[in-house]
Amino acid sequence: MESLNNRKSIRKYSSREVTDKLLNRLFSESEHTQTMGNLQLYSVVVTRSEEGKKKLAPAHFNQSMVTEAPVVLTICADFHRTSEWCNHRQAVPGYGNFLSFINASIDALLFTQTFCNLAEEEGLGYCYLGTTVYCPQMIIDALKLPQLVMPVATITLGWPAENPPVSDRLPLGAIVHQETYSDYSEADIDRLYSYKENLEESKHFVEINNKKNLAQVFTDIRYTKKDNELMSDGMIETLKKQGFKI
Amino acid sequence: MESLNNRKSIRKYSSREVTDKLLNRLFSESEHTQTMGNLQLYSVVVTRSEEGKKKLAPAHFNQSMVTEAPVVLTICADFHRTSEWCNHRQAVPGYGNFLSFINASIDALLFTQTFCNLAEEEGLGYCYLGTTVYCPQMIIDALKLPQLVMPVATITLGWPAENPPVSDRLPLGAIVHQETYSDYSEADIDRLYSYKENLEESKHFVEINNKKNLAQVFTDIRYTKKDNELMSDGMIETLKKQGFKI
Repeated sequence: MESLNNRKSIRKYSSREVTDKLLNRLFSESEHTQTMGNLQLYSVVVTRSEEGKKKLAPAHFNQSMVTEAPVVLTICADFHRTSEWCNHRQAVPGYGNFLSFINASIDALLFTQTFCNLAEEEGLGYCYLGTTVYCPQMIIDALKLPQLVMPVATITLGWPAENPPVSDRLPLGAIVHQETYSDYSEADIDRLYSYKENLEESKHFVEINNKKNLAQVFTDIRYTKKDNELMSDGMIETLKKQGFKI
Repeated sequence: MESLNNRKSIRKYSSREVTDKLLNRLFSESEHTQTMGNLQLYSVVVTRSEEGKKKLAPAHFNQSMVTEAPVVLTICADFHRTSEWCNHRQAVPGYGNFLSFINASIDALLFTQTFCNLAEEEGLGYCYLGTTVYCPQMIIDALKLPQLVMPVATITLGWPAENPPVSDRLPLGAIVHQETYSDYSEADIDRLYSYKENLEESKHFVEINNKKNLAQVFTDIRYTKKDNELMSDGMIETLKKQGFKI
């Protein structure tokens, strides 16, 4: 996976087709990802039609990749298929609960990331849309997802038509702990975030948002408490509607 | 990622060391995985000590890999570090909610899977422990995880000392949908699960568990409604204790 060290999110795609043959090979290979009890608690909805993409776009705040990418993949935590299997076998499924949603989400997300690693290696470009969990009901309606199916990840996919720079990352000391979690002093935080905070890109971000520092761009504009709480309520509501008791 | 097509969970490891140098290189490469707002909402606790592994083992139903693997990695959804960064920058973080837990879990799981794919490619063996979300409080106590940190994945890691067969997977038709979710008829279920149900391993499973079919092994023994509901309550309780409001 040499390609990984040069990984970046790709939001602009060429007109070159992503064939079903290639897509299915990548899906088949991704299926090797570990899964709970080998149940494969996920499914993927492939959207290629203009109409389908237009229906999905509002759920993703109308980001242009959704309508411009040749392929949009919505990966779902899926306990429906497994429950249907049980129902047809005189086995009584008990998966309408929070843990089962988490289990299925884990399966779906691990599958998604193997797919992303494979796509990257193939030379494809993709963008992971975190918006999937913000307004899940809109996606459920657009894709006609039944009970016990929840969208958890969206990938826009195509052949790259841009070459953005690789994003910065925190030093390893920020994310790796030995034996137990060692908490961060103020000096640790200063040291670990210094590179990121001093990037020209970060300074520009602070300036155009009229904030004092980068952290405030996140707390006051990009991911506010108010939005998070509103969308938390919405997501819990949707989970219940889909049959996952909380 | 040729290695992927031959992927299997490895539960027995040789005495060969997994060096810190190798581990850190794999972590660094895994950091390229996409992450929400480039916040990297995850952390990893590395357990190598006998004492540390013994503390973790009960949370994983004392599966032998936990104490026998040279390295155990617990990957956590982490909004603590980011919140500390905000706190030291006169930015008021608002991440003690359900959506933020989900966002951080997504980051943690995508990072985990890139790590797994890299480890596999390196020739390492690993086993993903789904038990991590079953009794998270025990892991929190063992690793001294602060508020806004939740364990979501555990990997036991080492050089393989076994070579089990590759697991079966469902045909692509079971997991891929075009444009909208197409529900499964009874005939679809029969067709899609037939290969799995007719494996010698599956038949053996049914027999030793004294059940009528494979689905019943899952519903009645491996993943029962009662256990799922009990552990759902436990997980929600733990999430609240860690500061994620539900």
